Amino acid sequence: MASTTTTTAAYSLRMRVRIDNRPGALGELATAVGAAGGNIVALAGFEARARKLEEDLVVNCRDEAHQQAVIEAVRACRGVELLECEDRTFAMHAGGKIEVAPVVEVNDNEALAMAYTPGVARVCTAIAQDPRLSHALTIRRNTVAIVSDGTAVLGLGDIGATAAMPVMEGKAMLFKGFAGVDAFPICVDVDDADQLVELVERLAPTFGGINLEDIAAPRCFEVEERLKASLDIPVFHDDQHGTAVVVLAALENALKLTGRKMGDLRVVIAGVGAAGVAIGKILLTAGVAEVVGVDRIGAIWEGRDDLNVAKQWFAEHTNAGRKTGSLAEVMAGADVFVGVSGPGLVTAADLRRMAPDPFVFAMANPEPEIRPEEADGLATVIATGRSDYPNQINNVLAFPGIFRGALDAHAHSITEGMKLAAARAIAAAVSDDELDAEKIVPSVFDRSVAPAVAEAVAAAAVAEGVIRS
Amino acid sequence: MASTTTTTAAYSLRMRVRIDNRPGALGELATAVGAAGGNIVALAGFEARARKLEEDLVVNCRDEAHQQAVIEAVRACRGVELLECEDRTFAMHAGGKIEVAPVVEVNDNEALAMAYTPGVARVCTAIAQDPRLSHALTIRRNTVAIVSDGTAVLGLGDIGATAAMPVMEGKAMLFKGFAGVDAFPICVDVDDADQLVELVERLAPTFGGINLEDIAAPRCFEVEERLKASLDIPVFHDDQHGTAVVVLAALENALKLTGRKMGDLRVVIAGVGAAGVAIGKILLTAGVAEVVGVDRIGAIWEGRDDLNVAKQWFAEHTNAGRKTGSLAEVMAGADVFVGVSGPGLVTAADLRRMAPDPFVFAMANPEPEIRPEEADGLATVIATGRSDYPNQINNVLAFPGIFRGALDAHAHSITEGMKLAAARAIAAAVSDDELDAEKIVPSVFDRSVAPAVAEAVAAAAVAEGVIRS
Repeated sequence: MASTTTTTAAYSLRMRVRIDNRPGALGELATAVGAAGGNIVALAGFEARARKLEEDLVVNCRDEAHQQAVIEAVRACRGVELLECEDRTFAMHAGGKIEVAPVVEVNDNEALAMAYTPGVARVCTAIAQDPRLSHALTIRRNTVAIVSDGTAVLGLGDIGATAAMPVMEGKAMLFKGFAGVDAFPICVDVDDADQLVELVERLAPTFGGINLEDIAAPRCFEVEERLKASLDIPVFHDDQHGTAVVVLAALENALKLTGRKMGDLRVVIAGVGAAGVAIGKILLTAGVAEVVGVDRIGAIWEGRDDLNVAKQWFAEHTNAGRKTGSLAEVMAGADVFVGVSGPGLVTAADLRRMAPDPFVFAMANPEPEIRPEEADGLATVIATGRSDYPNQINNVLAFPGIFRGALDAHAHSITEGMKLAAARAIAAAVSDDELDAEKIVPSVFDRSVAPAVAEAVAAAAVAEGVIRS
Repeated sequence: MASTTTTTAAYSLRMRVRIDNRPGALGELATAVGAAGGNIVALAGFEARARKLEEDLVVNCRDEAHQQAVIEAVRACRGVELLECEDRTFAMHAGGKIEVAPVVEVNDNEALAMAYTPGVARVCTAIAQDPRLSHALTIRRNTVAIVSDGTAVLGLGDIGATAAMPVMEGKAMLFKGFAGVDAFPICVDVDDADQLVELVERLAPTFGGINLEDIAAPRCFEVEERLKASLDIPVFHDDQHGTAVVVLAALENALKLTGRKMGDLRVVIAGVGAAGVAIGKILLTAGVAEVVGVDRIGAIWEGRDDLNVAKQWFAEHTNAGRKTGSLAEVMAGADVFVGVSGPGLVTAADLRRMAPDPFVFAMANPEPEIRPEEADGLATVIATGRSDYPNQINNVLAFPGIFRGALDAHAHSITEGMKLAAARAIAAAVSDDELDAEKIVPSVFDRSVAPAVAEAVAAAAVAEGVIRS
């Protein structure tokens, strides 16, 4: 199980080394790397050259300082020459992570006459006469914009549009890889919600859907609401709803596992930003008995005079008992803790004061509100956002299938019902046989999830009639 | 040689037919299609089924009415059953013509940790600290936006952003196919130049270059000038400069072929929109003796009181002799006719009044100012924009290599010198051996052109020092 000193591929080095071609030489090198705390995950590219061997050593490290220490350890090894050294994360991002490729080849005049002039004019004319045809005859059929203003990127905050691009490119990879959706990153320099809404409205003719991403709260709520109202294509703020859908799926399976009921649950949500608000909404829709949100100040209750619009809405719709106080105080007696806040905010003592057999979803990234090893034995089900613990609650279980389903159904929006259907499909992807306290959500690499989500979402869209005519 | 009744792949049908499996049956069908004027370009997908044969008949037609006539002719054939019929142009565009694909696979937690969280945060942080790194670590390295407001699409006019998409997708295919440049269509609903400039400025963090496309004159001039001034990435309005670069290349080779000199040429340009203005500029830069532009009203001269800003500029820099009058009048005595106007505006009589051995570049699309067969014997060199005549002057010879070179050189802009270098490289792609009155430009499918253009453009960028530090 991981600890704060876990090595990770995120800090991985590929080192090309030349070593003496004698028994034991590699062992000495491996020992040196191990002594420096480096985790050798691959040896590859062997080439024997006279009395020397060359090979690639792939070593996971803890952080950048640790990478340096490992490099020094390799350099200090007798008979070892470090030929090249690359940071594998930066190498993977070099030049960008996606490409734009033709789906048909244009290698002769016949093809050019159909794909481009003069044939293309016929297609343009058909769309000009009936703009709905753009959803059949252009990339709108299968293409989503991943729009960010760079104001709330991962845990990094407002780093701006230019620096947000690597995240949006990564998301585009996941859209295509998991659900065959073509997604293109659109990172934009804007100053406020008005500018962002206006820009996306102007861009809409290009896209079949809008995935909003990493936009700071409360701006994100207004932007999504306004775009949903003005556009006739699906608009979905993934930081809100992607997370909320997967949390609901996890909760449904935790209930199934323990034979409890949604209507009996008192839930505390730590963090009332984009994700926290959306989680609160979807849990209320799903019928939990009580939701209490907590921000940096304390519980959110109707009457607190420092609330932004979104938190004010939250106050009016949750915490009917007007609980006040700190996170620790409101956690007392709660059945479920949902954390979308910050590292280490919850202690073992907090868990002991919860109701019996609590569920703890500590999803702050990369460092959870409480480490599973600290919560061990104090909760019936523990989930995090991390891949190195069981029960990884990750949006990638939701967003590819949700857009796949919406596009397939020609949906003009993504409704609450479609989100609930997605959550049920994710939950159902864990079979009764597999269901276990350490398996309440499917693996993010389970290829059956996105198609199942897509089918459920498309069916819900059809049932609700939110289909483009 | 083509005529106005030429069949084309742009109006091509694929018909799945079931015919009697007996000698002569196919001949009867082919005869019927031929009698209807259809041009059978392929027979494929044979399947023998008991006493029947099924196959695909691919037939080029002249227009949509002709397609219907051919379908009727097939239906009327005895012993022939029409199983399916598709318009191949619409079939090629169905679902869009480009996709967004990952360049690295993300199939396990290691890869996910590098491409996405937590590793991606390191890359974002590096770019936030030094935004120039975005040109190395994101798709900006190789990605261009093809931006259009849909106001001047092909010869169709202001058909709007939604209907313009098929053209921009086609262009993206060509960017990738000819030069490996990732290009993404961005069609936007805007009302004026201010909105378009503002939108592109806000989008700029996503892209390594901006290719403006199918934007009406004179708006296109202002938009390009303002974006060139405000952005630190290459901005290039292809309808202006792509065409101008290829015209200059063609003219250089026509001069080489005939031993004449740029400084001796009097040029008439019909059409003073985006392309016409840019052609005038580049020819002046290249040293032609005289340029006279002609619009719907007549010659452009300094003093005409109905000129927009771009034509006013044109008037001030061309036609020093202040010629006035109709196209036919100013063509009298000219050495070169360059047409970027409309179909059939020039007559054989007009060509007879030009100076001896004129060059005629009649590039109106799809129907030139004068058909080559009408100009035959009246001009030393004849070029058009069409693929079914010799000397096709097509932007695709220029824009892929120009952006390839600019991106490779890390150029922050595209200068006049880079455009001249591109023209010279295109001209040089026709060897002395090949050079002929029917071969003054390379084939659009000559794969050597884009790399040669890229190399020349990159060298010019370095020489001029317009390189991002």
